[in-house]
Amino acid sequence: MAPMSTYIEPTYLEPTYLPVAAGEIGLFTDFYELTMAQSYFAEGMDGEATFSLYVRQYPPDRGYLVAAGVDDALDSLAAFSFDDASIDYLRATGVFTADFLEYLRGFRFTGSVRALPEGTLFFTDEPVLEVTGPVIAAQLAETIVINQVQYQTLLATKSARCVQAAQGRPIADFAARRTHGAEAALRMARASYIAGFGATSNVLAARRYGIPPTGTMAHSYITSFDDEGDAFRAYARMFPDRSILLLDTYDTIAAAHSAVTVAREMEADGHRLTGVRLDSGDFIALSRQVRRILDDAGLDYVRIVASGGLDEYELERLIRAGAPIDMFGVGTRVGVSADAPWCDMVYKMVRYDGRPVMKLSAGKASLPGGKQVFRRLDGQGIMTGDVIGLDCESVSPGEPLLALALSDGQRTVAQSPIAAARQRVAGGLAALPDDYQRLRGPARYPVSVSPGVAQLERQIRNDLTAGHP
Amino acid sequence: MAPMSTYIEPTYLEPTYLPVAAGEIGLFTDFYELTMAQSYFAEGMDGEATFSLYVRQYPPDRGYLVAAGVDDALDSLAAFSFDDASIDYLRATGVFTADFLEYLRGFRFTGSVRALPEGTLFFTDEPVLEVTGPVIAAQLAETIVINQVQYQTLLATKSARCVQAAQGRPIADFAARRTHGAEAALRMARASYIAGFGATSNVLAARRYGIPPTGTMAHSYITSFDDEGDAFRAYARMFPDRSILLLDTYDTIAAAHSAVTVAREMEADGHRLTGVRLDSGDFIALSRQVRRILDDAGLDYVRIVASGGLDEYELERLIRAGAPIDMFGVGTRVGVSADAPWCDMVYKMVRYDGRPVMKLSAGKASLPGGKQVFRRLDGQGIMTGDVIGLDCESVSPGEPLLALALSDGQRTVAQSPIAAARQRVAGGLAALPDDYQRLRGPARYPVSVSPGVAQLERQIRNDLTAGHP
Repeated sequence: MAPMSTYIEPTYLEPTYLPVAAGEIGLFTDFYELTMAQSYFAEGMDGEATFSLYVRQYPPDRGYLVAAGVDDALDSLAAFSFDDASIDYLRATGVFTADFLEYLRGFRFTGSVRALPEGTLFFTDEPVLEVTGPVIAAQLAETIVINQVQYQTLLATKSARCVQAAQGRPIADFAARRTHGAEAALRMARASYIAGFGATSNVLAARRYGIPPTGTMAHSYITSFDDEGDAFRAYARMFPDRSILLLDTYDTIAAAHSAVTVAREMEADGHRLTGVRLDSGDFIALSRQVRRILDDAGLDYVRIVASGGLDEYELERLIRAGAPIDMFGVGTRVGVSADAPWCDMVYKMVRYDGRPVMKLSAGKASLPGGKQVFRRLDGQGIMTGDVIGLDCESVSPGEPLLALALSDGQRTVAQSPIAAARQRVAGGLAALPDDYQRLRGPARYPVSVSPGVAQLERQIRNDLTAGHP
Repeated sequence: MAPMSTYIEPTYLEPTYLPVAAGEIGLFTDFYELTMAQSYFAEGMDGEATFSLYVRQYPPDRGYLVAAGVDDALDSLAAFSFDDASIDYLRATGVFTADFLEYLRGFRFTGSVRALPEGTLFFTDEPVLEVTGPVIAAQLAETIVINQVQYQTLLATKSARCVQAAQGRPIADFAARRTHGAEAALRMARASYIAGFGATSNVLAARRYGIPPTGTMAHSYITSFDDEGDAFRAYARMFPDRSILLLDTYDTIAAAHSAVTVAREMEADGHRLTGVRLDSGDFIALSRQVRRILDDAGLDYVRIVASGGLDEYELERLIRAGAPIDMFGVGTRVGVSADAPWCDMVYKMVRYDGRPVMKLSAGKASLPGGKQVFRRLDGQGIMTGDVIGLDCESVSPGEPLLALALSDGQRTVAQSPIAAARQRVAGGLAALPDDYQRLRGPARYPVSVSPGVAQLERQIRNDLTAGHP
């Protein structure tokens, strides 16, 4: 949707916006991470471990995923520590030894992370990131890493599907009231902008991420005036060059006629009504009726905005039907990724102390060893398939996607600019053949494992099943 | 699930844990709230407005809702302000006048709020809270109020359904990695504890809210040892009186036999294995097999914990089948309220400048006027029906549920202790007849409107439709 203001540079960018004070981020973990760490500590197990973060199964109707939240996960790890109050709390549980608590007091995340850059398209079984470090550090990272990457990836993916469905029509993020908290609202604005939305209604997100802010008016604005036309007039008086009038408070068609009257008054003063908004009812029928009313009045420049219950499926339906809607505001269903509010993203140990490992749990087996994802493109830059190889393997042809992002606990590169991530999504979708982008029943993008991974898996499976008859 | 530590007093309770710095919370709003406020300001409209927050339709299979997030909404309003950097940002948008920006710089939320106490059961159309104040203040509150109350209510409701289904067996919150961000993880732990869960794996939430922390071990712990039995032994050595061993890393039945061996070694040292955990596979068959293996070894005191893909429907299925599972860990599906990740909770103007108002939008009409909810109980304290009355009405019999919680922008009572909210849910569910608590297709709890509300609605509808033929 058209932003209401011109571009504003983000005024500041904090490294992370978790609802967690510096120093207590170490406690944002599952209790078992700490009890396992206590045991590793007591056993003197400080071998290097590698954990891989990946999605086991596509959520319904997804043929690709958009990596998001990686930057927040990395920043969280760089800040990971336990302040004195956190140590006091852990002591009070009565579960930990004094020497382990002193170890935690000085703990910093000293591992390294190779990760997909924010906005990279990826597929099932492919690592979004791999954490390597002392086993305690790599284990403690689990909760915050999954927590941040899983939902932001879901939101970016859902938003990218809306952008596809809208076929070039601008979309604005209206989800702030429906997301699961204020943190999720900020991330939804960011994820949807990366995915190609044009604006957000969330003012704080607009400021933090440098996204154009936008908005129209609420029903309450209309009801606070004795007369709907008076409300329209007051708004147009205030914002003569950027008014979008809400039509459905009482009766959409009557309001459209009223908007025409106001638009003509605006023209007399040398201004133009920007648009009108539909927020309920039959969008196909109403948009046609309203378009006709506007056009009959010579107001072909007034845009029609629709909002309310929209998602990629509804956008596709409206556009297929030829509904004359110019811009969309999406909120509820996209801001919680309503048809897929979670996915099977896991963080699994793949190597310990130089030894590749895997689990065999029914339906949940993992691929052993540290890995790299190699992407193959044809001569036109179109994606033809990915290969999951070992991190020590060279696969050719194929461009390696995971890059070092954190080394000895420090970011090796600054947080990706949001514009770069946005370009990465657009580039990825342009390179991904349409079959994998179908909104329903997409084809399965070819992802194979390298000979090195296949051999390693066979070998470990044999060893393990030999040991566990 | 059994907590791993004894009760610990919360070491501190901040008023709010939004990922928003003090002073910038005013920007956590939709842009249109600010443009409408600018127009009200320019028009000199400073009449008192009342907005009502309520749910229009039940999410699927819900017969009641559990109010949660109200305290966070109230604290957010008490802290609502715009710091200099926020004002600078708004100025840079080019949308607002200099005098309005100066007004915002000094802005404090000066309204009052009547609200349901945290943990109160409520039903569709009933206000969870009503905000009354100068129209700009009451309007600006919209986004943060819906954002906080909607998702926490969904999480508390989903959790309460799990508690029903578990029929007294303890449940622990394992959702931290699946919620939509760290803020949502903290609120999920709180909401689920209010709803009757016994513990959480989320250490920071445990500390902040005084919830017992708990946990077991991850697959990675097992895979970091050469042998599963060695892993079990190391954990038991560290936590001889609170070990729960994870069985499904390689082969659940083989692991159960291995757990028996370790449990016997523990007995020899005067300790007892607390439990074993199933995390994949057919829980009914596996729990029976594992129970038999344990019992045959004389280990009837070892509890069986199940986790992985559980929700109220699955809990009901397992318990109906008589699966010998003693405790549950729930995460993914409950932490995002997977079958209802959003609900139709709205914030609507019901009165402006002494005049009751309503909207008529198709399928989205609102009830006019400030309101109160009156709850009727029979002689045994069983709920028999609610009446939505006007805030100036007295409905008898009926206990008024909304209480003043914020006055002139200040909390009139401190944040509810979490224990009080927990008792309120338990009391509410004990008073609500079973028909309204069915997990599928619950009966519709009787909610009527008072004569005062009905008459007001008729009158305004007539006035409005007369004005809009």
